[in-house]
Amino acid sequence: MKNISRNELTTLTQSAFVALGLSPADASDVADILVMAELFGLTTHGVSRVESYGERLLLKGINPRPNIVVEQCAAALFKVDGDNAVGPLVGMKCLNVAMQAAKQQGVAVVLARNSNHFGPISPYSFLAAEQGFATIIGSNATTTIAPWGGSDARLGNSPLGFGVPNPKGPPFLLDMAMSVVARAKIRNAFKAGQSIPETWATDAKGVPTTSPKDALDGFLLPIGGHKGYGIALWVDMLAGLLSGAAYLTHVKSWLDEPDVPQNLGHFFVLINAQFLGNAEWLSERMNDFASILHGSEAADPQKPVMVPGEIELKKMQDYLQDGIPIEDDLLLTLENFSQGKFVK
Amino acid sequence: MKNISRNELTTLTQSAFVALGLSPADASDVADILVMAELFGLTTHGVSRVESYGERLLLKGINPRPNIVVEQCAAALFKVDGDNAVGPLVGMKCLNVAMQAAKQQGVAVVLARNSNHFGPISPYSFLAAEQGFATIIGSNATTTIAPWGGSDARLGNSPLGFGVPNPKGPPFLLDMAMSVVARAKIRNAFKAGQSIPETWATDAKGVPTTSPKDALDGFLLPIGGHKGYGIALWVDMLAGLLSGAAYLTHVKSWLDEPDVPQNLGHFFVLINAQFLGNAEWLSERMNDFASILHGSEAADPQKPVMVPGEIELKKMQDYLQDGIPIEDDLLLTLENFSQGKFVK
Repeated sequence: MKNISRNELTTLTQSAFVALGLSPADASDVADILVMAELFGLTTHGVSRVESYGERLLLKGINPRPNIVVEQCAAALFKVDGDNAVGPLVGMKCLNVAMQAAKQQGVAVVLARNSNHFGPISPYSFLAAEQGFATIIGSNATTTIAPWGGSDARLGNSPLGFGVPNPKGPPFLLDMAMSVVARAKIRNAFKAGQSIPETWATDAKGVPTTSPKDALDGFLLPIGGHKGYGIALWVDMLAGLLSGAAYLTHVKSWLDEPDVPQNLGHFFVLINAQFLGNAEWLSERMNDFASILHGSEAADPQKPVMVPGEIELKKMQDYLQDGIPIEDDLLLTLENFSQGKFVK
Repeated sequence: MKNISRNELTTLTQSAFVALGLSPADASDVADILVMAELFGLTTHGVSRVESYGERLLLKGINPRPNIVVEQCAAALFKVDGDNAVGPLVGMKCLNVAMQAAKQQGVAVVLARNSNHFGPISPYSFLAAEQGFATIIGSNATTTIAPWGGSDARLGNSPLGFGVPNPKGPPFLLDMAMSVVARAKIRNAFKAGQSIPETWATDAKGVPTTSPKDALDGFLLPIGGHKGYGIALWVDMLAGLLSGAAYLTHVKSWLDEPDVPQNLGHFFVLINAQFLGNAEWLSERMNDFASILHGSEAADPQKPVMVPGEIELKKMQDYLQDGIPIEDDLLLTLENFSQGKFVK
């Protein structure tokens, strides 16, 4: 493990994507998002993605030199054709189009198609919050979840995120997938020989199970049962169905068909909070909101009440000061990639 | 139990609100929403609300003759001051303002303050879907939930709903609160002498419990733990914080202070799907989406996979044909109210 400065990690990541065929400007946009994921401590969605994005770029499953096209459907409504670009490039394009429009109209919605995995959502929400925009952002994903009561994977564990700006304090940042837990947590329980709560996953026939082994052959369960199922569907309807992208089982598998475009979709809803009140008004309410929550005595004194985004923003503060901790293996991969050495 | 036609129930409900001091036009708007709740089978949010709304109207906790003011903040962004009107009146005003603006700009966001309980969300989503709009609608509520890891009620069990139109088939309608279960379900377990899953509620100190008795003294738990907590906060940030309404513990209690305005807030986000593609394109995708979900074999043959909204739309179809079943007690109350007899 080594601590790397934000600038150094960004340059290294950018070089890797240039070596993979992206233009320097595009590589810089992608690097910004993945490095911001690292700053937030979201390592599963950070610079390690250079490898998985890289694999698809090399197999021509992702287009390194895309022509992303923006279509204005109405004053505040846009469609974006990502031309099968690396996901964060499409994400940044959507965000910029949405911010531009919401500056004028107060609100903007951008729906993207022909895209790929666009990284975590918090970086987009954070960048928008810094400019005074509240956000609702989502993406669809490869199918891993069964419909509620069903018995095979027909919808994705779609990420959904929200942001609210705070001109004089920390913004609100929420970034979540719709499953109760990530698959890794079930794998850990299996290794430890522990059973799992019945709410985490089903077996291969769609029946809730406490066996981590059966769960690994089955499907993740959504939060709140039919409620999380419903939210996951809605995310796919905006990100996939309404955007013109693939949806549900039409999304191509990331693993099984790495050379075929996934045609993922995203949606960005932005609200310009500057039209709602001045900076003092907003930050006073935001800080009051947080302090009401913090004022609730913790049920477990070791675990004080938190507001979504606090953990990520604290990590960013620390990492900007001390550097971002990166595993030696990953660092070596980034260095190799940046020199055009893509084989392990 | 008696079956009442939609028209008859609407007239009766309207008369009740006129007797409670509303203008005939306003009473008609409120009746439309509450009767549509009945059509969807959402009896807890239907015409029984005449009693609870009525109680507050009589105590001057709700303003029967409001002057609802709409402020345009930008082309697609509006604030509405509900002037402490009956909630569904504010809801209908927001919906109409949003539809009008989204017809032009493709998107609209309306944030309401100084409002009250606005009924269920599905009726608004349904009315919008019939006109071709996708919706995200939410409201804040009296505090009943503890912050995640906290030990006292500081946020509401805020309702959140989504709709997607389908020009030639059933729209998608999702209407949910953020708790795993409603309080009534815990009360039923208590009466039956059964324990409850640890994920449903905490005791009075904020510690998850399997005792329905302790749970009734404690707090409902949100779906997915910190995830549902985060979504509930976000709903309150849009509906309460950004709208200029009360939020978190600033919301006045419905029960403890029925004579004091609650200053609830709502938000309406509308997307005009007609700008995204024609009716054939949209309904083909909507119907394909539903059939992919229905195609998943049910884990329990008695419980086929469903798409959110199906239950409600089926009930509406049945009730429009056979009449809406209304309890004798409730019918008597409605008749008494409509004649100005408010005391039991």
